[in-house]
Amino acid sequence: MEARGIHHLGLAVVDLDEAIDTYEKLFGGQLEHRDELADQGVEAASVLVGESRVELLAATGPDTPVGKFLAKRGPGMHHVAYRVDDVGAALRDLASAGAELIDTEPRRGLFGLQVAFVHPDAIHGVLTEVVSDG
Amino acid sequence: MEARGIHHLGLAVVDLDEAIDTYEKLFGGQLEHRDELADQGVEAASVLVGESRVELLAATGPDTPVGKFLAKRGPGMHHVAYRVDDVGAALRDLASAGAELIDTEPRRGLFGLQVAFVHPDAIHGVLTEVVSDG
Repeated sequence: MEARGIHHLGLAVVDLDEAIDTYEKLFGGQLEHRDELADQGVEAASVLVGESRVELLAATGPDTPVGKFLAKRGPGMHHVAYRVDDVGAALRDLASAGAELIDTEPRRGLFGLQVAFVHPDAIHGVLTEVVSDG
Repeated sequence: MEARGIHHLGLAVVDLDEAIDTYEKLFGGQLEHRDELADQGVEAASVLVGESRVELLAATGPDTPVGKFLAKRGPGMHHVAYRVDDVGAALRDLASAGAELIDTEPRRGLFGLQVAFVHPDAIHGVLTEVVSDG
């Protein structure tokens, strides 16, 4: 499978407004999307930093995936997402190569993207997502 | 300051050869550079993943910055580097904006790059580097 490049870097943050402000002020970031997904327990913003993108993730409560991550590790890098042409095909290739998958089928992610997560144990401790715009 | 985009994502790994192999096999990664910097206690490889780049960092021993990181947190994401036009100017802008710096002057980084690190406390727990090719 050929990943096309980093689609975004996912960062767990405590305060979404403060984090957006930091990326705007320090790196010239531009807010692209912002959304709250109550069912996923996350309030998220995507911020363009030059040609790249960071996805800022705040928890809507402590008993959510991002809330638990923050309690355990504190704010910081959460995952990296690679752009692929076809998430379903990427998952088949990853599975054939022996990678353990979290999502065995593409699912709808933030901001309307098709996404799937690969287990960090398959990739040296890095929680990795594959993403397509389709 | 305007960052131009993500120059690379720095990943701490236990075994450099295995990690290179993983990025080649799972994501079509292409080894770009490889180097051992005894004085920095690191053996590093830069791997192109599509239009992006990951920098794989293994420790030459336990009593090195990457060795201590691995002992404390395990393998995983270590830092993100943004490409800037001029590292010195970026540092002046970051300092004026109140960001705490690790390097107050540009220094020579891996693979001949000009680099400087910003303190993770300034950026919501994310160890952040600014980089130029110059």
